[in-house]
Amino acid sequence: MVKDIYPSRVNSKPEIMERKDPVVHDSKAAENGPLSKEQVNFYEENGYIMLEKFFDNEDLELLKDELQSTMKAHEDKDGPDVIKEPNSNEIRSIFEVHKDGDFFERLSRNERLVKVVEQILGSKVYINQSRINFKPGFKGKEFYWHSDFETWHVEDGMPRMRALSCSIVLTDNYEYNGPLMLVPGSQNWYVSTAGETPEDNYKSSLQKQEVGVPDEGSMEWLVEQAGGRIDRATGPAGSVLLFDCNTMHGSAGNISPYPRSNVFFVYNSIENKLVEPFSDKAPRPEFLANRENIQPITPVADLKPTAQKK
Amino acid sequence: MVKDIYPSRVNSKPEIMERKDPVVHDSKAAENGPLSKEQVNFYEENGYIMLEKFFDNEDLELLKDELQSTMKAHEDKDGPDVIKEPNSNEIRSIFEVHKDGDFFERLSRNERLVKVVEQILGSKVYINQSRINFKPGFKGKEFYWHSDFETWHVEDGMPRMRALSCSIVLTDNYEYNGPLMLVPGSQNWYVSTAGETPEDNYKSSLQKQEVGVPDEGSMEWLVEQAGGRIDRATGPAGSVLLFDCNTMHGSAGNISPYPRSNVFFVYNSIENKLVEPFSDKAPRPEFLANRENIQPITPVADLKPTAQKK
Repeated sequence: MVKDIYPSRVNSKPEIMERKDPVVHDSKAAENGPLSKEQVNFYEENGYIMLEKFFDNEDLELLKDELQSTMKAHEDKDGPDVIKEPNSNEIRSIFEVHKDGDFFERLSRNERLVKVVEQILGSKVYINQSRINFKPGFKGKEFYWHSDFETWHVEDGMPRMRALSCSIVLTDNYEYNGPLMLVPGSQNWYVSTAGETPEDNYKSSLQKQEVGVPDEGSMEWLVEQAGGRIDRATGPAGSVLLFDCNTMHGSAGNISPYPRSNVFFVYNSIENKLVEPFSDKAPRPEFLANRENIQPITPVADLKPTAQKK
Repeated sequence: MVKDIYPSRVNSKPEIMERKDPVVHDSKAAENGPLSKEQVNFYEENGYIMLEKFFDNEDLELLKDELQSTMKAHEDKDGPDVIKEPNSNEIRSIFEVHKDGDFFERLSRNERLVKVVEQILGSKVYINQSRINFKPGFKGKEFYWHSDFETWHVEDGMPRMRALSCSIVLTDNYEYNGPLMLVPGSQNWYVSTAGETPEDNYKSSLQKQEVGVPDEGSMEWLVEQAGGRIDRATGPAGSVLLFDCNTMHGSAGNISPYPRSNVFFVYNSIENKLVEPFSDKAPRPEFLANRENIQPITPVADLKPTAQKK
């Protein structure tokens, strides 16, 4: 068994440890592009970067149409990969859209996007998880602080911090419609949480995470390290937010009339494939953490079906 | 019985009506001060104004100490005027602090503050309700959109829109610790809500309002009227937020480590004293809506006890 360098949910008390992996994995990343030196440095320092208007308006319309039609096709579906809002029947997330053999697969392999991700992770990459999210206006519920890596490591067996999340923003994100909040610099610290993982934890944690969330003392410490800063991922539709797998993030509820929707891809380094979970529980299902037939992504240039496919 | 020009909770469908009262009640207000013409115009147009650093740092320290000691004195008290967080035992609000015969009474009569309120309401004023609020970090819950006037009219018998809320901000309000959100211009429209007032509604509505809240269609319309704007009352500790009794407002939850606390006074015109509630229910208790021994406020100049008392 692989030695667990990021133990969590094994002690009765939480602990803050130093990160043991780089944030930017290609030491020459800053020189090679596509991200500029300033952008790479920002990402390394803050654990995230917002690429404003990464997709133009034409792409955006296409993206929104595809999201709508995929939502519609899943309206009456009640599988484990379709997550509803707590206290209502509205769809919040649909998972594993990158295997649709169609639009979202092409999007996940989008050349401009994949080149940026490869630049940061310093290797070929693959999709570990994907979903589309729809957060309705008026009743979108909050999502408490968490590091994705903590769960991916403990419950999925992701060995190292060499993955990132990519959120393609399909609606304008304002300060007042529950934007993602991130603690800059938090990617450099690993909060080992107290407690133990329950059986089939994911069945409730996708609606409201109870295990693996940081204690209040650790959160206060992280925000203090950030000089009191909590950043919000606001920006116009078409923007792309990239954030490190260990950046502490969360979001408040959304009582505004404005819904929020996005497409979410988790890119993992091909050199960081999942092993057995670091808890003693069974791995989570494939739709949450891909481990079958893992191949590095071959990028495609165009979002439209007329473009060349592999 | 007084004719009900602002009916609500009487029909099965919601309705939006025009406001039948001015927002600034003294037609010469803009000329006489203490608020400048620009400030009065801003208030009239947007239904609120934030007076940054109205209290200096010395006053602020005094205010915070007094809030802390009052909270402490109420820690084990479980009366109807002490409101706890849903799902926890932390104090959220203590009501009727302006009758403490001490600091908060003097604060409610503070000359600089009262002169501003009189300027807007165009008459002598009195305190209709007061409270201190403490919204803890990490678990402060959201408060959904509402117009205070709707409740004060229906449940308390406030005849006209000639009152305002004054929030003295004791902690820095950031975008990310659940600041008050307001829909600018919403003070000019009255959302008559559907449904009926339950008996003793206040016992649950102070934690989570269920009746008298606007429907989603009306909220969308109000935000559209505002050109899509939803303003947030951010600002440094010591600031004072004044907002009209009919301005639609709410707040998201607070998952940040930063608590929020404030002192809250509702000033009503002495010419707008409460009558019988416009519902067929008994009036709410005195601690929520003052109707006994109403006298216009005689301002006092100093917050310290050495100052002259009436």
